[in-house]
Amino acid sequence: MAAQRLDEFERIRRFFAPLAAPGALGLRDDAALIDGPDGQHYVLTADAIVEGVHFLSDDPPAQVAQKLLRVNLSDLAAKGAVPVGYMLVTALPRARDEAWLAAFAAGLAADQVSFGIGLLGGDSTATDGPATLSVTALGRVPAGRAVLRSGAQSGDDVYVSGTLGDAALGLQALRGELAGVAAAARDFLAGRYRLPQPRLALGQRLVGIAHAMMDISDGLVADLGHIAEASSVGAVIEAALLPLSPAARAIIAADPLRLSAALSGGDDYELLFTAGTEADAALAALAGELALPLTRIGRIEAGRGVEVLDDRGEPLAVPVAGYRHF
Amino acid sequence: MAAQRLDEFERIRRFFAPLAAPGALGLRDDAALIDGPDGQHYVLTADAIVEGVHFLSDDPPAQVAQKLLRVNLSDLAAKGAVPVGYMLVTALPRARDEAWLAAFAAGLAADQVSFGIGLLGGDSTATDGPATLSVTALGRVPAGRAVLRSGAQSGDDVYVSGTLGDAALGLQALRGELAGVAAAARDFLAGRYRLPQPRLALGQRLVGIAHAMMDISDGLVADLGHIAEASSVGAVIEAALLPLSPAARAIIAADPLRLSAALSGGDDYELLFTAGTEADAALAALAGELALPLTRIGRIEAGRGVEVLDDRGEPLAVPVAGYRHF
Repeated sequence: MAAQRLDEFERIRRFFAPLAAPGALGLRDDAALIDGPDGQHYVLTADAIVEGVHFLSDDPPAQVAQKLLRVNLSDLAAKGAVPVGYMLVTALPRARDEAWLAAFAAGLAADQVSFGIGLLGGDSTATDGPATLSVTALGRVPAGRAVLRSGAQSGDDVYVSGTLGDAALGLQALRGELAGVAAAARDFLAGRYRLPQPRLALGQRLVGIAHAMMDISDGLVADLGHIAEASSVGAVIEAALLPLSPAARAIIAADPLRLSAALSGGDDYELLFTAGTEADAALAALAGELALPLTRIGRIEAGRGVEVLDDRGEPLAVPVAGYRHF
Repeated sequence: MAAQRLDEFERIRRFFAPLAAPGALGLRDDAALIDGPDGQHYVLTADAIVEGVHFLSDDPPAQVAQKLLRVNLSDLAAKGAVPVGYMLVTALPRARDEAWLAAFAAGLAADQVSFGIGLLGGDSTATDGPATLSVTALGRVPAGRAVLRSGAQSGDDVYVSGTLGDAALGLQALRGELAGVAAAARDFLAGRYRLPQPRLALGQRLVGIAHAMMDISDGLVADLGHIAEASSVGAVIEAALLPLSPAARAIIAADPLRLSAALSGGDDYELLFTAGTEADAALAALAGELALPLTRIGRIEAGRGVEVLDDRGEPLAVPVAGYRHF
């Protein structure tokens, strides 16, 4: 089960983990595996977004729809799965008008084409509170080949796709907290916050290469902590290796404290994975083929927890709490 | 997709039906079918409940959990499916205390044992609004054997399981609107409202017998209307044939207008199905075996819509809107 707050993890552990079915992976993988046809497993994952917590009332409805779908597709990507379809549950204020719904549905329609999925069903109800939207997404992966969080091994390299911190800086930009940043950079960062790109092609190609994988939704350090915990290992990150977009690099150069966006900021939805050192050349080739940076940012070691080192090799204090939404 | 309000059906038709995947049955069956292993189909269904709309803040949390599960299991029953597991999405007020969660989880745990299912995953988030809870349930049925809403044929008999109107009268009792009714009767009716019994064994046994089936959640007339529309037929109900519990029978005898609870009241979660007249003896035997009344209440005819006849064979005016929650 996904969770945005640390105490949610504790709640899940205490109250829901004892209810987990055999395929539920102890509720630690944001995904369940059940038998499918033809030697396949279905991957099931669910994510909810709440108005005022995960999106703003005046966010464009098409983008709200697409973010809802994509955060779920990102969880499928992290298992190496191919998307199949989704169930949609909407609880909408009675006053929500049809123009909003039409734009919301148009956003879904566009992403259905982009990602080759269809709507399987769901429920639609009214609420007196904020809009609450959830999707249960379904993917498929060859049986036994899904990449779990629990496979990291001491000696593995730690990799991330794309760039880190853009979404957190994008949210700061939308809040008007990034004075002095060029409009083009602000737009780029806001776009990264509003419309994640699920790394589906990458995830599918990492089956058989990655030992452990997840997507970054709560922040790099928190999420790598989940892999470390599930794998009973420790991890070390070198801050100097973190891949940054030009926009993020400029902002952090001007204000080094903003590096926390890359370490602890959520919502980037890049893939975080570990692989043996022998995979180095294959990953470089894959990065070129997909035109997507795959950057080694650290390593897996015996031990526990996540340590971040600065450019002198000294431990850096990092806020450990997962990203908190506005 | 389920929907509690007529305009929700129209919204689904306009905005969501065009997005439906091939297995989604046009979003008309509250269920989707996808390929499973070993010649099986998986049945997927989702239902959400909102605090203040579908349950009350002071309802016992274990019963809220069980109602949430059971309304979904009831949709599986209506397809003839065997339950497999479920995904749970909770959006809970930040102040919801751990005692509430513990009791909620205990309710889930008890029903997991009762119905042979496990928790597959989900999401857990916070909301500033009312608690919003949803489940996507998964069942299995031999491929091609799921009972749909679209199979009713002119000449079929229309049947319901159990008794009708209890849940609507139970809600009236909980609201204090049933003065002069004995405490034992009130408790029985309130229990029928709070804790539906998904008719899983019946649904599975009706595979190959029922031509069309659904569960009664919006009210008999509205739901039979869904079967009639999906099957392009009409239906006639004889009010005198409606099966009533002793408690409901006494209340309706004292106030005949309360018959609307049985015709239009929601939340009974009994199975409504049609079958050829040759199934009569088999259904009588099945009712005895399951110790569950199966009552013929009318017939399917050429035409469209649902007509209700009184005991003189005259048309009865019935509120056609689906059941509205408090």
